[in-house]
Amino acid sequence: MRDFVAVDWGTSSLRAARIDGSGQVLAQRASERGILTVPVGGFPGVLEEICGDWLLESATLCLVSGMAGSRQGWREAPYVACPAGFAEIAQGLSWVEPRRIALVPGLCCELRGVPDVMRGEEVQVFGAMDLLGEREGVFVLPGTHSKWVQVRNGRVQSFATFMTGELYALLRQHSILARTLPAEHGTLEEEAFTRGVLHARETASLLHAAFSTRTLALFGRLPAQALGSYLSGLVIGEELRMRDPAIRSVVLIGSPALTQRYALALRTLGCTSRVLGDQASWRGLWALAQTLELP
Amino acid sequence: MRDFVAVDWGTSSLRAARIDGSGQVLAQRASERGILTVPVGGFPGVLEEICGDWLLESATLCLVSGMAGSRQGWREAPYVACPAGFAEIAQGLSWVEPRRIALVPGLCCELRGVPDVMRGEEVQVFGAMDLLGEREGVFVLPGTHSKWVQVRNGRVQSFATFMTGELYALLRQHSILARTLPAEHGTLEEEAFTRGVLHARETASLLHAAFSTRTLALFGRLPAQALGSYLSGLVIGEELRMRDPAIRSVVLIGSPALTQRYALALRTLGCTSRVLGDQASWRGLWALAQTLELP
Repeated sequence: MRDFVAVDWGTSSLRAARIDGSGQVLAQRASERGILTVPVGGFPGVLEEICGDWLLESATLCLVSGMAGSRQGWREAPYVACPAGFAEIAQGLSWVEPRRIALVPGLCCELRGVPDVMRGEEVQVFGAMDLLGEREGVFVLPGTHSKWVQVRNGRVQSFATFMTGELYALLRQHSILARTLPAEHGTLEEEAFTRGVLHARETASLLHAAFSTRTLALFGRLPAQALGSYLSGLVIGEELRMRDPAIRSVVLIGSPALTQRYALALRTLGCTSRVLGDQASWRGLWALAQTLELP
Repeated sequence: MRDFVAVDWGTSSLRAARIDGSGQVLAQRASERGILTVPVGGFPGVLEEICGDWLLESATLCLVSGMAGSRQGWREAPYVACPAGFAEIAQGLSWVEPRRIALVPGLCCELRGVPDVMRGEEVQVFGAMDLLGEREGVFVLPGTHSKWVQVRNGRVQSFATFMTGELYALLRQHSILARTLPAEHGTLEEEAFTRGVLHARETASLLHAAFSTRTLALFGRLPAQALGSYLSGLVIGEELRMRDPAIRSVVLIGSPALTQRYALALRTLGCTSRVLGDQASWRGLWALAQTLELP
């Protein structure tokens, strides 16, 4: 297998890795050149700038996942409908340079007459499957827009998006709660966090539960430095409340700061988790590349 | 009964009414001098400025409800615990000028170990009871922080706050959805609104449901001018989803723009409503005054 360059090109950043034929990551790079910073027509130049030296050899293959394949990106690689595995994704690749550089399509699914979408997370899920040797299960990707992904027989069956990270930031920075919460994020107060997780489950609506951050402060029942952790527990707890109670174990994929919180919240609710980080993206893109029949 | 001045002094505005002995509103005034604009010690002066002429007669009684009685206001009138009727509220009045001018306390209650509070809405609920001749029922006050108030035997038994108006504004103005929604609010698109109400009920978490505003736009399933109404339906529907399904009828108190939306959402879910506006505040303060034994 020839050398391979994996690129995860999101809204606000770009990460790239050079990977050898055996799947080993040889080098990594990160840049702030997310798609929002790239003018129309500027995508080939930015890729060249960041990893042109890796792409010198004509035999090198480069797969790009994430928002670079969206309508606002390099070129649209239309969403592939679930259920989808490597075969469907490979078919949906949008080649910007034939047999050299391709954009990986995102996935879409439909539930109750409403579509849902993801771009980039599907690659992490496939990477996690490959790394863990699993072909079934629930994969959770916490973030601005968290994804819960249901996998069966090595294919993504369906998934759901939760605006958890974004809503936490909005409540923390722009709502009435911002007046009560300290500006500094501080370290996680585990007791307050798990109290929030449990209250979210009991209350069954964040619209109501979020107000408790204010009243607990008002009555001196939670110290100021614990309020941010409590609110984080409420919002993550609201996401976790929605899971099928039959799910007793999930795979978490994301940054350590987030997966640590989710693992604690899940444990509080009686659900175990295994955790993966960045390596899932590289592995997913590399594993996808292995399935392509290229000369 | 002597003349009476009712004041509803909130965070961002002040409204006042002069009311005669029979309960008839003789005149109303509104000002932007909400408590956030008033410096420490400045409250008597602002009241004098806005309705000093109404308070010239020494026999005139003035009751002030709303955030003026909070810790950030004129003086704190501590929350009165539920269940509470006029007797408990009268006992909790904080007289800033003996037998002439008093601040009405808010109410607090506790559910699942967490306190809830309101200030000003309790007066509207008592006014609505008086106007409708009701001593039982569920009273809903839509707004930035909506209140659902349970009344039994003429007393507030308990209530719950929902951050509905605030969360709608946050999602509309500051979230990723702001990029998709037109800046103009436009008129209410009833079909999109009720679709949102029903989707909120089915989805059971706004964290997930809110994202559908984006995907329906992405796939061209809802026209841009309908997205604001759809999101409004989602957020109000999330609040309504929480009601006890045994509640088949409520009293709505608020501005016409809001009560119209809530009445439509409630009707969609098989619940009837009666609607009251501003007059509830004046009637509540006046009826409270009637219960005071003053010389």
